[in-house]
Amino acid sequence: MRTTAATVFILALLSNSAAQTAANYVKYVNPLIGTQRMGHTYPGATVPFGSVQLSPDTDQQPHNIGGKYNKDAYKYCAGYQYDDTEIVGFSHTHFSGTGHSDLGDFLIMPTVGPLQLEPGAKGDAASGFRSAFSHENEVAEAGYYKVKLDDDNILAEMTATTRVGFHQYTFPASNDSHIILDLMHGIYDYADKNVWTFARVENDHTVVGYRQTNGWARTRTVYFAMEFSKPFVSYGFKEFGRQDYKGFWRKFDQTKNFPEIAGKQIRAHFDFKTAKDEKIKIKFAVSPVSTAGAMANLRAEIPDWNFERVRNEAQSQWNKELSKVAVTTLDEGEMTNFYTALYHAMLSPTVYMDIDRSYRGLDQNTHSAAGFTNYTTFSLWDTYRALHPLLNIIEPTRNRDMIRSMQAHYDQSVHKMLPVWSHYANENWCMIGYHSVSVVADAIVTGNLTGPEAIRALESSARTARTKYYDGLEWYMSLGYVPEDRNSSSVSKTLEYAYDDWAIAQAAKKLGRQDIYDEFIKRSGNWRNLFDDSTGFMRPKDSNGRFYAEFDPLKTEGQGFIEGNAWNYSLYVPHDVPSMIEKMGGRQKFAAHLDELFTMHLPDEFFAETEDITRDGIIGGYIHGNEPAHHVAYLYNWTDAPWKTQERVRMILKHQYRPTPDGLGGNDDCGQMSAWYLFSALGFYPVAPASGQYAIGSPIVKTAVLRLENGRTLTIEARDQSEDNVYASRVTLNGRELDRRYLTYSDIASGGKLVFQMSDRHP
Amino acid sequence: MRTTAATVFILALLSNSAAQTAANYVKYVNPLIGTQRMGHTYPGATVPFGSVQLSPDTDQQPHNIGGKYNKDAYKYCAGYQYDDTEIVGFSHTHFSGTGHSDLGDFLIMPTVGPLQLEPGAKGDAASGFRSAFSHENEVAEAGYYKVKLDDDNILAEMTATTRVGFHQYTFPASNDSHIILDLMHGIYDYADKNVWTFARVENDHTVVGYRQTNGWARTRTVYFAMEFSKPFVSYGFKEFGRQDYKGFWRKFDQTKNFPEIAGKQIRAHFDFKTAKDEKIKIKFAVSPVSTAGAMANLRAEIPDWNFERVRNEAQSQWNKELSKVAVTTLDEGEMTNFYTALYHAMLSPTVYMDIDRSYRGLDQNTHSAAGFTNYTTFSLWDTYRALHPLLNIIEPTRNRDMIRSMQAHYDQSVHKMLPVWSHYANENWCMIGYHSVSVVADAIVTGNLTGPEAIRALESSARTARTKYYDGLEWYMSLGYVPEDRNSSSVSKTLEYAYDDWAIAQAAKKLGRQDIYDEFIKRSGNWRNLFDDSTGFMRPKDSNGRFYAEFDPLKTEGQGFIEGNAWNYSLYVPHDVPSMIEKMGGRQKFAAHLDELFTMHLPDEFFAETEDITRDGIIGGYIHGNEPAHHVAYLYNWTDAPWKTQERVRMILKHQYRPTPDGLGGNDDCGQMSAWYLFSALGFYPVAPASGQYAIGSPIVKTAVLRLENGRTLTIEARDQSEDNVYASRVTLNGRELDRRYLTYSDIASGGKLVFQMSDRHP
Repeated sequence: MRTTAATVFILALLSNSAAQTAANYVKYVNPLIGTQRMGHTYPGATVPFGSVQLSPDTDQQPHNIGGKYNKDAYKYCAGYQYDDTEIVGFSHTHFSGTGHSDLGDFLIMPTVGPLQLEPGAKGDAASGFRSAFSHENEVAEAGYYKVKLDDDNILAEMTATTRVGFHQYTFPASNDSHIILDLMHGIYDYADKNVWTFARVENDHTVVGYRQTNGWARTRTVYFAMEFSKPFVSYGFKEFGRQDYKGFWRKFDQTKNFPEIAGKQIRAHFDFKTAKDEKIKIKFAVSPVSTAGAMANLRAEIPDWNFERVRNEAQSQWNKELSKVAVTTLDEGEMTNFYTALYHAMLSPTVYMDIDRSYRGLDQNTHSAAGFTNYTTFSLWDTYRALHPLLNIIEPTRNRDMIRSMQAHYDQSVHKMLPVWSHYANENWCMIGYHSVSVVADAIVTGNLTGPEAIRALESSARTARTKYYDGLEWYMSLGYVPEDRNSSSVSKTLEYAYDDWAIAQAAKKLGRQDIYDEFIKRSGNWRNLFDDSTGFMRPKDSNGRFYAEFDPLKTEGQGFIEGNAWNYSLYVPHDVPSMIEKMGGRQKFAAHLDELFTMHLPDEFFAETEDITRDGIIGGYIHGNEPAHHVAYLYNWTDAPWKTQERVRMILKHQYRPTPDGLGGNDDCGQMSAWYLFSALGFYPVAPASGQYAIGSPIVKTAVLRLENGRTLTIEARDQSEDNVYASRVTLNGRELDRRYLTYSDIASGGKLVFQMSDRHP
Repeated sequence: MRTTAATVFILALLSNSAAQTAANYVKYVNPLIGTQRMGHTYPGATVPFGSVQLSPDTDQQPHNIGGKYNKDAYKYCAGYQYDDTEIVGFSHTHFSGTGHSDLGDFLIMPTVGPLQLEPGAKGDAASGFRSAFSHENEVAEAGYYKVKLDDDNILAEMTATTRVGFHQYTFPASNDSHIILDLMHGIYDYADKNVWTFARVENDHTVVGYRQTNGWARTRTVYFAMEFSKPFVSYGFKEFGRQDYKGFWRKFDQTKNFPEIAGKQIRAHFDFKTAKDEKIKIKFAVSPVSTAGAMANLRAEIPDWNFERVRNEAQSQWNKELSKVAVTTLDEGEMTNFYTALYHAMLSPTVYMDIDRSYRGLDQNTHSAAGFTNYTTFSLWDTYRALHPLLNIIEPTRNRDMIRSMQAHYDQSVHKMLPVWSHYANENWCMIGYHSVSVVADAIVTGNLTGPEAIRALESSARTARTKYYDGLEWYMSLGYVPEDRNSSSVSKTLEYAYDDWAIAQAAKKLGRQDIYDEFIKRSGNWRNLFDDSTGFMRPKDSNGRFYAEFDPLKTEGQGFIEGNAWNYSLYVPHDVPSMIEKMGGRQKFAAHLDELFTMHLPDEFFAETEDITRDGIIGGYIHGNEPAHHVAYLYNWTDAPWKTQERVRMILKHQYRPTPDGLGGNDDCGQMSAWYLFSALGFYPVAPASGQYAIGSPIVKTAVLRLENGRTLTIEARDQSEDNVYASRVTLNGRELDRRYLTYSDIASGGKLVFQMSDRHP
């Protein structure tokens, strides 16, 4: 059917009406979702992909104590836990949803009364500068956060631009008001994480400095510049760390009104007299490069003291981004789920360069991002699955800049590797695989990365995958699998390397590089080497080629896997599902296997081993709270019962995503959990990114309009959508029935209309 | 008398013959002078004012142990002690002659045989990578150093450019040769001085990295890039420090052939197979800014591997500088004294910027030195006295760039102060006063700093001198003196502030700034407030204006002085000698007082308190080894017995400067001791820099030709010069008898001929 003028008119109307509601998408975002239990999101203020995440921290727990891991640290990965009743202060950098952590730089806390320079003990607000608060007096919006600090009756509000956090504190009348700047505070900190800190009081309202840490990022420095709206009347510092040698600085009384300090553990205070309801505002800029860069960022992004204007602009930015996918749903709760997921999907990677394009590179030199925006915080083991594929659809320009940032990382890497898990000019090597190559291949295969830079990115991918000393790759390349006796989590690594290799091959095919294609398509079959016919699971081998005798497919630990057991991980052959199914005994047996996974009971002893998720994060033995099985519900599409994909997807959407603080069943993982939701809510999912295909599922939205960068729109309708009508009995694309169980990238990018006829019956 | 054509011809001849011998001045330089006992000079290779001082370190002693000062550290201020019998290695940065220390960055040591990554214990060369050596196998020249390392029979040679050290090691045949790079080594190091170090092996012959320390300079980072002439076959690192959190780097075996490491305490080794007499060369560049900057410096300054060419160029540079003052002397020993002093006077301040003009500023930001060469290492308490006045004569352009560097320091200073004692983008606040202002004033008064930048420098000087919280200045400004009960060393501070204030006033007068003149000429009289008529000495007061009751003019400690007792320090009114003499009872009484100083016996108990000097460093009670009395011998010029100045000066020249390793009676102090020698050897001395006057003394040279930057030459002749003829019975300038006891800057800068008629009789 050709698109008629009438259709175009209707589409235009739809699109227009969505645009008119755009002003209200922010109201559906609830940043508190995921702040309870395992979501590890933060509720504070930030703009899309912003460098600053200005957010309350409810406690600080060291990552380890005396060299031993402190398990209490884990829930503070994003600094905030909903169940806590106190706020320690507001810091400027936070990861969203990670399962390991860092950051929490530059804590600010307003207080009244006798100066307290210790945060105090949890549960005892009076013991330090921490303050009690209650959720009743708390407002968390996209780009804005407000809370009343009960201890001293101070109203704290905050908003942000890309590089500047904007604080507004409404004080009571007091001759003894303070604003504390804590350079010791951090997330996942421990005794010696602060390598060095430095601060200078430039004048009676301006402070600059930096914090250098050795944590998840081994060698990380963040610079700052802050300005107060009102001059302080006095100020001081205290050093809490040991410093053997003070030198001739002993000449000075450095504790009071001395404008320059450096050391490992420092807290500063700035003192004011405040009238009743007087507002003291702070602009706090960060830079990856220098204090001069931070000051330039501050001046460029917030030239005045108009808090409301900055807040409005932050929220306008959010509306603009959120309106790229305009949906209607059955109820408001789902609207909240959707737009909060979209919000979470637009928090990271984060911009990592000054207003003048300077940034710190992986080689620790200062570089200029010529022709692209430089990003950091690549949680690639998570985000290659759905977040980057989503950005490749709704934000292809930004996703390309992220790839350019990865290429810069490669260029600056002494290993000549694309990032594994990188943040703040550091490779932290977290998790496994080399999934940058999947992000690159997805962009190449879909035509979003072309020309010489595509060739370079392909070659960089190939070289990354040939780094022999990386995580078992030498054996993988010589034996065809990673042997567990040489390198643990060997099955997970083998399977993910095989997928990544296939992704490289797809990019090579697209770019006509037969040499690279041949090399990597061969490697992509390596998953076969660990399939154990006797059990029907993937199973670790030793370096002599023998399967390990001890094997329990329910166990996660010591079985060759990471963040997943054999039940979940064995299904990780997203790039060759038909062959996997064949190995597993054919379509029927495979479907029954999936049924068992979704309906079995995972005994507590095995659940206890699964990291990062709550009990709600599992369905039967299917673990949604971790990523390795994120594609699994869609595998029914390769069996004779694709309707089971639809059923399972709707079940997961319903149970794993709820519009409440505890609404996420596991870590949001820099937007990957949310991106799974977003794809699935729209009715399709990239089982194998870089295939250019998206498996059909079951949408939870009623309608959706994707406003694409190419000017086209894809309109999605789920006709007769309801709680019960979870089956898509018929799918048409531009009026023509879809005779395959997937969309192509071209189907989406061409725009048009995708209609799901929903039903409560399956075939 | 007008200069005749014949005179010009003779001068030209003289000048020409001096130029012909220029090629040989290097032969008179003996860098070993001052390496024994208290000189604190280093014997290694450097170019004039070079950033790299590549020199052997004979031991490393921590500055303090468990928070307590370790007195054994002191003799290693320059890393090398002549009496030692082992060399630990060759590091790239050294101060010359300081009495406190830092640096010693990046120690390189070649070894053969089983790898040793500990330096081992002093006196037990086999216990580590240190090696025995003997002075018989050692050659130290300006710009070149050679030594045989006895343990492994390795010949070590080194030379340098401004920013690159060039090593050449001649190995024996071995399958087990190593070059160690020690990032832990340092001078005045202690447990936690290393804040962070970072290294990357870029390829099989290139390494880059940095070392960040917290020592005398509180926040100092030096970056490096090194290239080997031959690829290493393997390499490794070992971390000797504690690092609680290793993160996911545990994935890798980082000890062997892993190209990236960071931590607090690291040593690396690079392994080679060497044939008999095979040379392995290393180019090692430093940068204040980045590893990229270091690499650019390396490539720009030494593009090839021609060691001999670089050595020749280094020595040509030295000849060019040394030939600015062409002298003849009575014997070769004195030639060595003279040219070694001139060499020591041209070691610091050192160039502190990359080849592209980038440097790290005091604010820790990267700046570009637009229109000047940026320098660091300003030992101003010492060098304002004679070193900068000397440079203001023989290197006025360079001295102006040093002032521009001080101005940049001021601009980047949060205190808005010119440097006190600064090095490597840090103010270390060592010693007392604000003597930058004297250096500035000297250049302004003599016409070498003019126009708007002179005005700025003057205003910066004035603002520096008004920094209330600096070292007693608040009281000095309100009471007219520093009270000892508020701030120790109060007399020394008061006297030096008063001189500095007078210097500011002189510059203000020259520039027509009556306001500043009035303010500071008033302050310059503050020395009067501490003169005690009852004892005839300067004496500390408390804040109520009462002299301290306990007072011993022979004691150094606890008497209100620093590095000097009342006998020496009370004479520190260089800017108003006549008034001081009047206060002290008139000319005759004053001359008798000076006589007593030079002939008294300083009991051992008081000598023990004098720092930085050997017993040889004193004459009677006159302490030449420290600076406060450096002008004292010239004070006889204000009495009726100026011949005593001549006698004392010759005595000091003879006894305090000898052409032997132990030839310096005290710390050379970044060239100040040497500059005293140079001025005095030429026959005049700047008692009050910024006066534009140089008191006449007694030259020790026979002839001298000063080749000035303005194209003129000043020729000095000491007629009938001999050991005994120490009195200048007549002094003529351009044939006219000098009817005053000083030269003016104009007398010198105009060029011409200065003749001293020497005699063994005084009037």
